[in-house]
Amino acid sequence: MSPNNPENSTESTTQTDKSVTPDSGNGIADKSEATLRRSTGAPQTLSTTVDAEQRASIAQELQTVLDGDFPEAREATRKILANPDILPRADLDLEQSRARTTEQLQQVRESGMPYDAFRADQGGTGETGRCLTSIEMLGHADLSLMVKSGVQWGLFGGAVGNLGTERHQEMVQKLMDLDALGCFAMTERGHGSDVQQLETTATYDAETQEFIINSPTASAEKWFIGNAARDGRWAAVFAQLIVPGSHNSTNDQSSESQGVHCLLVRIREDDGSAIDGVRVGDHGHKGGLKGVDNGTISFVNHRVPREALLNRFADVDEAGNYTSPIENPNRRFFTMLGALVRGRVTVGAAAGAAARTALDIGVTYANLRRQFAPDDALPEKRLIEHRWHRLRLIPRLARAYGLQFATNKLIARVHELDQLGLDPTQHTKEQQADQREVEAHAAALKAANTAHATDTIQEVREACGGAGYMAENLLTTLKADSDVFTTFEGDNVVMMQLAAKELMTGFARELGGLKPMEMVRFGLDSFGTLLRRRTAADALIQNLVDTFSDSEETSLFDPAYQINLLSEREDRLMRALARRLRPARKMDVDEAAKVVDHAQDHLLAVGWAHVDRIVFEAFVEAESELKSDDARRVLEQVRDVYFLSCIVDNASWYLEQNLLTGTRTKAARAALNDLVDSLGPWSQTLVDAFGIPNNITNLKLMENYEAMVPKYESNPAAGLG
Amino acid sequence: MSPNNPENSTESTTQTDKSVTPDSGNGIADKSEATLRRSTGAPQTLSTTVDAEQRASIAQELQTVLDGDFPEAREATRKILANPDILPRADLDLEQSRARTTEQLQQVRESGMPYDAFRADQGGTGETGRCLTSIEMLGHADLSLMVKSGVQWGLFGGAVGNLGTERHQEMVQKLMDLDALGCFAMTERGHGSDVQQLETTATYDAETQEFIINSPTASAEKWFIGNAARDGRWAAVFAQLIVPGSHNSTNDQSSESQGVHCLLVRIREDDGSAIDGVRVGDHGHKGGLKGVDNGTISFVNHRVPREALLNRFADVDEAGNYTSPIENPNRRFFTMLGALVRGRVTVGAAAGAAARTALDIGVTYANLRRQFAPDDALPEKRLIEHRWHRLRLIPRLARAYGLQFATNKLIARVHELDQLGLDPTQHTKEQQADQREVEAHAAALKAANTAHATDTIQEVREACGGAGYMAENLLTTLKADSDVFTTFEGDNVVMMQLAAKELMTGFARELGGLKPMEMVRFGLDSFGTLLRRRTAADALIQNLVDTFSDSEETSLFDPAYQINLLSEREDRLMRALARRLRPARKMDVDEAAKVVDHAQDHLLAVGWAHVDRIVFEAFVEAESELKSDDARRVLEQVRDVYFLSCIVDNASWYLEQNLLTGTRTKAARAALNDLVDSLGPWSQTLVDAFGIPNNITNLKLMENYEAMVPKYESNPAAGLG
Repeated sequence: MSPNNPENSTESTTQTDKSVTPDSGNGIADKSEATLRRSTGAPQTLSTTVDAEQRASIAQELQTVLDGDFPEAREATRKILANPDILPRADLDLEQSRARTTEQLQQVRESGMPYDAFRADQGGTGETGRCLTSIEMLGHADLSLMVKSGVQWGLFGGAVGNLGTERHQEMVQKLMDLDALGCFAMTERGHGSDVQQLETTATYDAETQEFIINSPTASAEKWFIGNAARDGRWAAVFAQLIVPGSHNSTNDQSSESQGVHCLLVRIREDDGSAIDGVRVGDHGHKGGLKGVDNGTISFVNHRVPREALLNRFADVDEAGNYTSPIENPNRRFFTMLGALVRGRVTVGAAAGAAARTALDIGVTYANLRRQFAPDDALPEKRLIEHRWHRLRLIPRLARAYGLQFATNKLIARVHELDQLGLDPTQHTKEQQADQREVEAHAAALKAANTAHATDTIQEVREACGGAGYMAENLLTTLKADSDVFTTFEGDNVVMMQLAAKELMTGFARELGGLKPMEMVRFGLDSFGTLLRRRTAADALIQNLVDTFSDSEETSLFDPAYQINLLSEREDRLMRALARRLRPARKMDVDEAAKVVDHAQDHLLAVGWAHVDRIVFEAFVEAESELKSDDARRVLEQVRDVYFLSCIVDNASWYLEQNLLTGTRTKAARAALNDLVDSLGPWSQTLVDAFGIPNNITNLKLMENYEAMVPKYESNPAAGLG
Repeated sequence: MSPNNPENSTESTTQTDKSVTPDSGNGIADKSEATLRRSTGAPQTLSTTVDAEQRASIAQELQTVLDGDFPEAREATRKILANPDILPRADLDLEQSRARTTEQLQQVRESGMPYDAFRADQGGTGETGRCLTSIEMLGHADLSLMVKSGVQWGLFGGAVGNLGTERHQEMVQKLMDLDALGCFAMTERGHGSDVQQLETTATYDAETQEFIINSPTASAEKWFIGNAARDGRWAAVFAQLIVPGSHNSTNDQSSESQGVHCLLVRIREDDGSAIDGVRVGDHGHKGGLKGVDNGTISFVNHRVPREALLNRFADVDEAGNYTSPIENPNRRFFTMLGALVRGRVTVGAAAGAAARTALDIGVTYANLRRQFAPDDALPEKRLIEHRWHRLRLIPRLARAYGLQFATNKLIARVHELDQLGLDPTQHTKEQQADQREVEAHAAALKAANTAHATDTIQEVREACGGAGYMAENLLTTLKADSDVFTTFEGDNVVMMQLAAKELMTGFARELGGLKPMEMVRFGLDSFGTLLRRRTAADALIQNLVDTFSDSEETSLFDPAYQINLLSEREDRLMRALARRLRPARKMDVDEAAKVVDHAQDHLLAVGWAHVDRIVFEAFVEAESELKSDDARRVLEQVRDVYFLSCIVDNASWYLEQNLLTGTRTKAARAALNDLVDSLGPWSQTLVDAFGIPNNITNLKLMENYEAMVPKYESNPAAGLG
């Protein structure tokens, strides 16, 4: 519900339709309030008279489901977050902020969390899911610390740990222990999103058995690199691997690049000065993340030993022969990138956590702060008692729930794949498909979570008025810090396209060999399949899909109808896109590129429709895990809000497709209004269920409010003259 | 086109409809390119081969229209902005930033600009329009300086100058000259948007002929006050005026407040220490605006002379008799607030300027930066050559044009009213209506401009990727600084409601005495009328409205059809809202308040529909002022983009109302795609027309790009080993 896209409710909102669905007669359904109107099967308005104990119990039950598969990691990180000094500080200068975050990194190490990021044979625990969940949780309090941890253990550590072999084990141990701080030197001035075009070169010199690393152009300089400005002593450097005169190369032309590979490169001496042949620079102030020292790295004939090559997926022998267990260069490249998927997962997850912190602050404030009375004789209303305020907060709260459920599923899936301990070079086609699907979901949820964070934190900041703008109230810091999440670890537009292309490729295979975009270079060679169902939870969804039969009178609140409406959007958009792209197969590359470019908004729409569906499915699964009817009754309404927001936001599409009538889309909007009314008094319970430590959200804006009366009483000097 | 509301184009985008409208055969219409398809009357795709000179001439002509009625003020301020040291600096600490802004304030004074804010009899020039335009222009470079200027001369100065009388003239002279720095102490902890509920008291003591100022509760503390933390020596303090035992009061009960009035109060000694009885505090760091020293002020039995009351609209004599030339207390209150409308105008206008700076940066970068090639054999495409990038930037660019045109009209109107030199206490009903309409437009455009700035700066920041996040590239500073504009000088939700209520009141009078909301206290007693047309420009619009007759085949590009579609939305939303609210008249206040609350989204939709229409009308007027066909052909397409964005964003409403068919809304979306393709190669010309000095937009992200090749050449040490 953006203010730029205002939609009026129909005037039927004021009608008092007396048709009432049967009262289930127990629990928190409020018998004194009208049943939600307008649509058959509408749920009952939730009671506002439930006592604190019952609310706490419902919040606890919701938290159990929100906490997902790795609750112990959440609890452990909550202990780190309960440190009263955890919140970012606006009063520190750049150097102080960086020093503080580096110091906090030691605390994170002491918690043992980083060891979950590495395999048991590397000295870790192999508990990927626990690791990802812990890094996500840091996002509740301080995104600088989350990013610094992510750079050290996730990106730099992930590159060395997953692209290296036993010859890099010493470094794995050191980086786990923080005895070696490192950078993930992928992005360059000239290329970020289009990684295959990187310009840095690593040229093998067989005489000395070294690689010579160079930044041949100004645009080859490594750029925006975390840990590079101050702390990094090492870097995982991505470069075009050039093996002059190699005859074992899969590529016939000598001296041509074998593609982008990663090398472990020392960049600074222990004392912090740059190594000869390496130049480092400092990006200084950014929009936020003051605790993270982003900088630049470039190379002038910098020599590193042959063993610096992280050689799990490709190697160069002493004589300069290039070998790889993966024959196809494209597949090799994407296998390397695939090993790094966890960075993308944590960025999305931590953005989600930041958004939940903002929602906790905004909802708590809205339940305390009063403004505007209907009449001088009446008390001022709490902000949450204003309809528009509910419409600002509650649909975003519902989306936060859904994204957390979906992100939990993604993390569980990444964990599960890791536990299988498969060798990516030996993947079956089915396993490759699994891997690519996980990567697509990581990309889609990265974009969805970070876009949600940007939108939600901004809205909450505004919904807290001037108080939201004071740095002490955390919202502007969350906003400034999370802002970069939309473009780093993969620009959101590129991420959503990547996810949609993976979907289209899977779709094309389903339909029998249609490869709409193989003509145009877009890094596509994947093997996904559409709507594959594997687990018990998937069976639950499939059952909903299968048993549904549409009719004029179907309830907007029927989950089977809901999932069918969301799936139908995804399916139709994909079919229409396939039709649009089909002619490109017969065109030359220039013309075909134009066709693809003109379909870019359509491609992105496919990605978003996909996200809407998978988030919805995650909702349904989460509901099935709840034990009590009361908690389920609350969560059902949250899911309804999520679903109705999807419909309202895409109402024009449903109308154009004749999938919904105008009467129906108006009813959806009216039902959304009713549901935020029902959930308004439950909003505090819903944010309590996030389980965010109090010291993070108990900020000055609350304190001010609560302090008002006592301060007045303790100020006897003041008075009417 | 938000990513949360993706809309697919129809597949017809790839069709090549050969039906061509007649080529006008001259100017910049490109004969080699296909005419825009899909709708009769479609304009031709603009030529991409126009030479630099012709482009510059078109940019100049567009600038003349964008510059509006006070081009000399724009030119004068451009000279201030051309100072190479004008841009905000991220590297300064809080104290340094504040000191720097205060110093820059002297430069602004030296330019003479502040004198335009005051009447000739006060030592000023009375050139309101020039003053407002100059403050707007500061928003191009540094919003701290703009806000500091606005606080000093607009808010503090405006209060003393417009609410005071000749007995405050000495202070007017001092504050103009910066010999007295002051605060606008309205907002309190407990109340910002609901000003009538302020708690600070000013109680008259007839014995000493003083007012005793107090902060009787903790929530009465003045809060978020600019200039209060460091620089302010004086404050215009808004307080409940209490005149004990007054018998001349319009209110019978002694000791009861006469309502909120404003007093001129000394708060600090010359040395910066607080005056006895006054406590000042510091808000420290905010989300942005580091150069503005926001703080708190509270009072304990602080005595000021009787003459401190700014007594233009009400006075208290020596004996304590309260008098006012305005009998109705509500009208008196709103007359005082009305005298302060200029603050709201400049906040909206400056936010618009900040958004234009962001667009200039984003569009220039998109025309330089290359990323992604369709094929290895082909060059990488410039960002602007990607369809989605055009869809991100160009509709926002079109909105920026429209908002500037509408804001220019508003400033001209405020200027015109000021030039009449009318006494607000003697306003006729017609003049009161004029005044209230200007206030409603100021509120609506404040919300529209600041929401646009928030959305646009964020989108541009993301569209510049990682470079957008570096502080040196200004976008994050513009974002952080402009962020507060959405809630200060009137929260946007409150502003848009205020505008919509004014519209509804006028509408009700048109319909004959329907006063839907008089039952519920909402500060409503205004006298607007609907769609009044006064000027020659208005006649132009009225002519369009009158001559239009709808048909199935009407072109989406026909301005008469366009304005009718936009007006129809506003009108229908208003009629429907009036029907919804009508029953409230017969309800008790509690029930009636519920009806109004439930219509809150509807009320806001009325406000936004109104903005869409008045912005569109400003577009049409601006086109009529252009001299050359070429410039008009470009601006027509910008207006079409604006119009089509309005339709696409509200497509579901048009479909539900059966005002447009699905075929038509799809055609609108396809036409929008075609138009951004046509305007993409003109985007640089369109931002050049903003006339923003180069030193503001020629940032490191451009320099990096342009420096790439030379840097490589001057770096002979680098190379392939």
